[in-house]
Amino acid sequence: MGTFDLQATLDRILPVSREKIAAVQARIDRQVKPVGSLGRLEEFARRFVAITGREEIRGKRIYTFAGDHGVAEEGVSAFPAEVTPQMVFTFVDGNASINALARHAGAEVRVVDMGVAIDFDNLPGLIKRKVAKGTANFTKGPAMSREQALQALAAGVEMAAQAKADAVDLVGTGDMGIANTTPSAAIVAAITGLSPQQVTFRGTGIDDEGLARKIAVITRGLEVNRPDPLDPVDVLAKVGGFEIGGIAGLVLGCAAEGLPVVVDGFISTAGALIASELNPQVRDYIFAAHQSVEIGHQHMLARIEQKPILDLSMRLGEGTGGALAMTLMEAGLRALREVLTFDQAGVSEGSEQ
Amino acid sequence: MGTFDLQATLDRILPVSREKIAAVQARIDRQVKPVGSLGRLEEFARRFVAITGREEIRGKRIYTFAGDHGVAEEGVSAFPAEVTPQMVFTFVDGNASINALARHAGAEVRVVDMGVAIDFDNLPGLIKRKVAKGTANFTKGPAMSREQALQALAAGVEMAAQAKADAVDLVGTGDMGIANTTPSAAIVAAITGLSPQQVTFRGTGIDDEGLARKIAVITRGLEVNRPDPLDPVDVLAKVGGFEIGGIAGLVLGCAAEGLPVVVDGFISTAGALIASELNPQVRDYIFAAHQSVEIGHQHMLARIEQKPILDLSMRLGEGTGGALAMTLMEAGLRALREVLTFDQAGVSEGSEQ
Repeated sequence: MGTFDLQATLDRILPVSREKIAAVQARIDRQVKPVGSLGRLEEFARRFVAITGREEIRGKRIYTFAGDHGVAEEGVSAFPAEVTPQMVFTFVDGNASINALARHAGAEVRVVDMGVAIDFDNLPGLIKRKVAKGTANFTKGPAMSREQALQALAAGVEMAAQAKADAVDLVGTGDMGIANTTPSAAIVAAITGLSPQQVTFRGTGIDDEGLARKIAVITRGLEVNRPDPLDPVDVLAKVGGFEIGGIAGLVLGCAAEGLPVVVDGFISTAGALIASELNPQVRDYIFAAHQSVEIGHQHMLARIEQKPILDLSMRLGEGTGGALAMTLMEAGLRALREVLTFDQAGVSEGSEQ
Repeated sequence: MGTFDLQATLDRILPVSREKIAAVQARIDRQVKPVGSLGRLEEFARRFVAITGREEIRGKRIYTFAGDHGVAEEGVSAFPAEVTPQMVFTFVDGNASINALARHAGAEVRVVDMGVAIDFDNLPGLIKRKVAKGTANFTKGPAMSREQALQALAAGVEMAAQAKADAVDLVGTGDMGIANTTPSAAIVAAITGLSPQQVTFRGTGIDDEGLARKIAVITRGLEVNRPDPLDPVDVLAKVGGFEIGGIAGLVLGCAAEGLPVVVDGFISTAGALIASELNPQVRDYIFAAHQSVEIGHQHMLARIEQKPILDLSMRLGEGTGGALAMTLMEAGLRALREVLTFDQAGVSEGSEQ
C-alpha cells in the first residue's frame, strides 16, 4: 500500500457538468406534470444521469466497512467491543438489517474488514483489508499513524475502482464498529471547530453520566492529539477509525471514477467529510441518504452542503439509510424514463410553461 | 347509491389493537441492532402487522380519483380544465408519473372517474363512478348536494371493499383535478378555522395577483356557503370535490375493512381530513406519505395527527408520494421478516437491552 498516491486520486476528481445537469432537467420540464412537481426525485435523476451518462442503474453495491476502536475501552458504547466481529459474521451470513434492506433495494453488500480486532481466517465473502487489529485509544495518543490512515483511504479507493470494473452504477457506504460514533463526533469537532458538547449524542441507554464521559473522552482526544483541521488525513489519523478511512477513500474513489455515492448516516458522513475536506468537488457525487438522530450529523451535512434524502429517525449505520435512499433515486430515474412529454401525451400545457 | 349507509361504515371502524402493536415491537426489539435504531421503519412494520395480521404485502393498489371543479372558472389554476380528462387518458395509458412510480413500487393503479367534465364513453381501464360533470362553482353556491357528497363517499368505500376482495393489503390514495388545491384549502380552513391566507399556497406560475385571487375565491366560498365544521359531509358538499369525496370514502372504507391506507399529499389529505372528522379512529389506518410543499398541508397533518414519511419537495398529487411511501413500508416489513435476533445470530447484547 506504500504506493498509494492520494494526490493522484484527488486530481482525478472533476466537477460534474452543470450543462449536463441542466439538459436532463430541461427534458424533465417537458414531462406531463407541473414544472418541478416531482421535487427532489428530479434532482436525483438529473444528477445521476449527469454523473454516469446512464438513465438506468445496472448494479447497486453497498460497502460496509468494519473496524474496532481502542477508545471503546473508555466505556463510550452500550455494546461490548466483541459485537464488531459478531456483526461481521452476521453481515457475511446475510442476516443483519443491512442485508435485508439491501435485498429490498436490489443492492449487493460487500463487507470489508478494515481493522476488526480479531482474525477472521478465511471467512468467505469477507474482503480483507485489515490495517491493524483496532485503532489505538485516542485519549492516549493518535488512533493510527499517518501511513495507516493512507492505507485505509487506499482500500476505499480500490473498492470504488472494483465497483466501476463490475458495472456497478451506484455505490453506498456503510460502517460497523462498536464505539465509532465517538471518533465520528471527534472528526466533526476537529474539522468544524464545534465543541464536543455540540456534536455528541446521548444515544440509547446512555445516561447523563455516560454522555458526560463520552464528551470528556472526545475533549481529551482532541487535546492530546491536536489534529490539524487543514490536514484531513491528520484528523483521520489522530481521532478517526479504519472503517471511517475506508469510507472516506470510497467517497474519493467514486468521485474519481465518476460514480454516484450514497452516503449513509453519522459515521459514513464523517468519512465523507474527510473526503470533502480533501477535495470539495467530491460533493458533486454525494447523495446524503438520511438525517441521523445523532446531533452532530446536521453539522457534517451543513459542512458538505448536502441535504438528506430521508428523515426516518434512524441511527443504525451499516449502510441501512443508504439502501433506502437508493430506492428513491431509482424512482427518480424511472419517472425520467417512463413519463411522456406534454406533446407525446397530447396534454395541454399550463400558463407557467 | 341511495342505499349507502355512511353510519354503518363508520360503525365498522375499530381501533387497531395496541397490544398487537406492542407485540410486534417486542419482536423487533430482539433483533440484532440497538433498540429502536431503525426508527420509523419499525413503526411501519408494527402498525402494518397489527392492522393486517400479515408480515408481507400481497397486493398494493393506488386509486387515483379524478374530478373537475366549477371553481376552475375563477382562474385559480395555471392549467386549463381540459387537462383533467387529458390526464385521465394518460393514466389509463400508463404514461403519467403515477404509473411510473407505481410500477417502481410494484403497485397497480386504478383510475376512477368521480366527476370529470366530459364523457369517456367506454374507456377500458377506467372505473366509472361519475357523480356529475364537475362540481358547481362554490363561490356561487354549494359545490355539490349532500346526496352527491354521500354518493362520492360511497364510491370510495366500495373501492376499499373491492381492494379487500382482491387480496390487496396496502391501498394508496391519489387525485387528479385541475383547480383542486382550491377546494382542499377551503376544506382545511372550514374544519380548522384557519384563515384562507394561512392555508393557500402560491404554487408554480402563480404571481401575487393570482395568489390574492385564489385566497379571495376561497374566502368567498366559505362566506357564501358557511360549511358546518361539525358536519364533515356538509364541508365536503359545500366546498369540496368529487375526487376528494372518493378519497375520503376510500380512507373510511380501508379503516372499515382493516386495510392500511397510504394518503398522498395535499388533496388526498383533505379527503383523509374529512374521513378523520367523521371518525377519528381512521387515523390508526393512515400512513401519511409525504410532506407536500402546499402550506396548508402541515395543518391537515397536524389535525389528523400524522407525521409524513417523506419530505421530497413534491407537489404533484396523482398518488405519487404514496407510491414512494409504500416502498419504505415494504422495507420495514422486510427488516421485520429477515433480520435475526441476538440469540439466533449469537451476538452479545448491549447494556441498554
